[in-house]
Amino acid sequence: MSSATRLTGQMIIAGVPVRGTGTEIRGFDPAAGRALDPPYRYGGAGDVDAACAAAAEAFGAYRATTSEQRARFLETIAANIEAITEALVARAVAESGLPQARLTGEVGRTTGQLRLFAEVLREGSWTGARIDPALPDRSPLPRPDIRQRSIPLGPVAVFSASNFPLAFSVAGGDTASALAAGCPVVVKGHDAHPGTSELVARAITDAVATAGMPAGTFSLLFGYGPELGVTLVTDPRIKAVGFTGSRSGGMALVAAAATRPEPIPVYAEMSSINPVFLLDGALADRGAELGRAFVGSLTMGSGQFCTNPGLVVAVDGPGLDTFVAAATDALAASPATPMLTPQIARNYAAGVDTLTQTAQLVGRGETTDQENACRAALFTTDARSFLATGDLQAEVFGSSSLIVRCADADEMHAVAAGIEGQLTATVHADDGDLDTARSLLPLLELKVGRILFGGWPTGVEVCHAMVHGGPSPATSDSRTTSVGARAIERYLRPVCYQNVPKSLLPSAIADGNPDHLWRRIDGRLTQN
Amino acid sequence: MSSATRLTGQMIIAGVPVRGTGTEIRGFDPAAGRALDPPYRYGGAGDVDAACAAAAEAFGAYRATTSEQRARFLETIAANIEAITEALVARAVAESGLPQARLTGEVGRTTGQLRLFAEVLREGSWTGARIDPALPDRSPLPRPDIRQRSIPLGPVAVFSASNFPLAFSVAGGDTASALAAGCPVVVKGHDAHPGTSELVARAITDAVATAGMPAGTFSLLFGYGPELGVTLVTDPRIKAVGFTGSRSGGMALVAAAATRPEPIPVYAEMSSINPVFLLDGALADRGAELGRAFVGSLTMGSGQFCTNPGLVVAVDGPGLDTFVAAATDALAASPATPMLTPQIARNYAAGVDTLTQTAQLVGRGETTDQENACRAALFTTDARSFLATGDLQAEVFGSSSLIVRCADADEMHAVAAGIEGQLTATVHADDGDLDTARSLLPLLELKVGRILFGGWPTGVEVCHAMVHGGPSPATSDSRTTSVGARAIERYLRPVCYQNVPKSLLPSAIADGNPDHLWRRIDGRLTQN
Repeated sequence: MSSATRLTGQMIIAGVPVRGTGTEIRGFDPAAGRALDPPYRYGGAGDVDAACAAAAEAFGAYRATTSEQRARFLETIAANIEAITEALVARAVAESGLPQARLTGEVGRTTGQLRLFAEVLREGSWTGARIDPALPDRSPLPRPDIRQRSIPLGPVAVFSASNFPLAFSVAGGDTASALAAGCPVVVKGHDAHPGTSELVARAITDAVATAGMPAGTFSLLFGYGPELGVTLVTDPRIKAVGFTGSRSGGMALVAAAATRPEPIPVYAEMSSINPVFLLDGALADRGAELGRAFVGSLTMGSGQFCTNPGLVVAVDGPGLDTFVAAATDALAASPATPMLTPQIARNYAAGVDTLTQTAQLVGRGETTDQENACRAALFTTDARSFLATGDLQAEVFGSSSLIVRCADADEMHAVAAGIEGQLTATVHADDGDLDTARSLLPLLELKVGRILFGGWPTGVEVCHAMVHGGPSPATSDSRTTSVGARAIERYLRPVCYQNVPKSLLPSAIADGNPDHLWRRIDGRLTQN
Repeated sequence: MSSATRLTGQMIIAGVPVRGTGTEIRGFDPAAGRALDPPYRYGGAGDVDAACAAAAEAFGAYRATTSEQRARFLETIAANIEAITEALVARAVAESGLPQARLTGEVGRTTGQLRLFAEVLREGSWTGARIDPALPDRSPLPRPDIRQRSIPLGPVAVFSASNFPLAFSVAGGDTASALAAGCPVVVKGHDAHPGTSELVARAITDAVATAGMPAGTFSLLFGYGPELGVTLVTDPRIKAVGFTGSRSGGMALVAAAATRPEPIPVYAEMSSINPVFLLDGALADRGAELGRAFVGSLTMGSGQFCTNPGLVVAVDGPGLDTFVAAATDALAASPATPMLTPQIARNYAAGVDTLTQTAQLVGRGETTDQENACRAALFTTDARSFLATGDLQAEVFGSSSLIVRCADADEMHAVAAGIEGQLTATVHADDGDLDTARSLLPLLELKVGRILFGGWPTGVEVCHAMVHGGPSPATSDSRTTSVGARAIERYLRPVCYQNVPKSLLPSAIADGNPDHLWRRIDGRLTQN
């Protein structure tokens, strides 16, 4: 391991390594069941203050950079991450128990996200440029010259996720989109992967220096969520929050932010059980195939995806029986795989135990001696019980899913209407099912951020049209997405310029369109 | 008065006139000092429940209407309002004490807003249509077909403003933008103008019937804010809130919404003192002229504008002395004019009294015997006192303004950096002031929603590029505007469609672009 990838056990505040003074934490290899070197220590209120002060100081100069400068900065971060892929994947495998291939893919996804936002910056529509030219001869009153562009909100606090040590962590989608918007970022790294966090933070820190960005553009802290996390979210210099994690964790940050004198947006991506609707024709045609494919999605990454299919809804009958039988068989042959942390494994086991009290257990994965492994579980219940029992909608993080047997299509509609907000809903339909699907669609639109047909919800494409979001409790703000190009909008706000002298106008809304942007002139899109 | 404009003293719930059973309220003519017929009564929790139930029931059918259908609906509302202009203006004059010309103009503004959103609907970009076509041959994994469009959030609660009985009230910008988005609206009418509210509500109700919209698309309630208002905001069927009013009122609704299990957006447009920066060259060149024009803006509508210039900042010197002298003279010749309500007049008088303790009173408007009249007031202080005394930033709703004398440009920058969030900042600058203006601009961008040069903040153009919003405490959500085309975005959220069968796709994102929209294909704007 070269010096570039030798871990120091430190946080990074505005480019400077800082050793925490609080509780000691260590990465933990859940497959091997052993703690990893080096030790890290939690930071405290003083570290939050230092990181926020540096971010606030950096904000002016950072937001004054051009789109092109920030695009290159993001590309440099991506290149720096790629340069340490081997060490990064090795450490992330050790800290997460996730397979090497998955984490290698996640490096690509992380760098791909950074490059997507570089593309978004160069395309330029993020500026939201609008011009309503003056109408000096309008009667009874002339219209002044009125222009609008978007500016960044200010320093952003980002909370790393446990389940994507790279793509939703230190240089993940929240950080990439906030940096793209022109916001300095203070990351609270996740306890489950401090070494991975340090490596990525150093890749960002090096890029900050290379790109000539102010040092306070980026900091990485470690700390206890209810203390350091709350201190961070309530710091007056923080102007927005990105979070991926549990419902309780996310809602705690929403509540903490609500105590601020100044309201700020909190983008918490929380729990989702991602219902899958199996329609009659599809079940009759390929119930067994669907059952096997479902188990593939359910057990991927030990079920530790935000979009894990934790709920299956179908009308009872032979097709569903075939599905359940095939799924149960596939499940029985599914090896137990390590979960991210011992705590997550304990929570999973407890969640499965609870479900066993209220629903019928129909299948489990292979047994295991491994303490931290996820042994998949499949349950069934009927629609009436499901609708009467709110607890059956609680997310069990891991490979656990509940099949709701409906008496008929009406009951299936009632279940669709009764579910809480979700990230996704999946429909498996044949041509003969299209009328049923058509009547389900308006219900699902009100419940989820993404509707997919014929596939599985795990696997979130990073692209322009993606929505990784949805109504509460899937997220705290359904108007946004945390994956894909539109994630940048979360960290922007519009400013209007009325009769501002031409020499003072930002280039995005200057005469002659020097940035070659798509702009709205009198409400009409044009590149002129 | 024809039957179309005869007041009944009732609320309207989903098309049905309903007499309240709570506290009696009446419109009050502040100029004549007399209560107006007919009496109205507050509604209660049962009325909120009925209105929300009807709105929730209407939502499905209402959001399924086409953009063209909603555009015509908004135009019908506008036409219905125009048809009763005479009676409406007469009643609004009586209930507000505002001049007839102002309220006639406000009718035009209100109908203009409705028609602007009809235009926004027909232009179609509100749909946010995006398509990332499938890449079946992509390696290592194919990309599915991924599309995105925006859908309405659901029923919206709108709180009428006191100071714009038409343009920010029952059929004002919040209602127009929410209806445009496809959201049913439940309005809490303002106690100060129940008759005006009833007339407008009936114009909307008639349009609902004419356009064949579901009855629950619109309801008007009256009630006590801390009771009925809070019940409305915490009703689980309400999915967003629009509010224009005081800081305490707005923050109370934000706090009430924060008690909901499901977070919802609250768009509260609250207090602002709208700083005006007078730069040296402009002051030297036309200090007296600026002083007179300032008083014109300050006293317009008894100073009861969200964008009233309540703060003037300049470097001390002969130019500022000239400005103050001219302003004081103009003020002394300004007649006292009625305020909207006796309570607002009392609050104004108390605010002026308080300021008299902490700043130097330099001028007042004409004296008056009228109990509810606003006698304008002008104060000065120095920059150090201003920065040390938070209370000097408190909005005094009415024609009151504070001039901050700065020792030099640095102190002026310190004042700019020290002000709270505002709706607007105004700069008066000559060519020789451009360097100072350039250095002020980045500070002002972080403080306000609209920066204007060479004019006055009163007067908000309704257009595509307007921002009527700004950082806290000017509003509770700086990412939005309550005036202008982008107000519709407050009530929308994106939904993603992955591999959805072509026959089920909404037309906005269907193949062949049947709605002829600007759409983003693979991130690039196109009309194909």
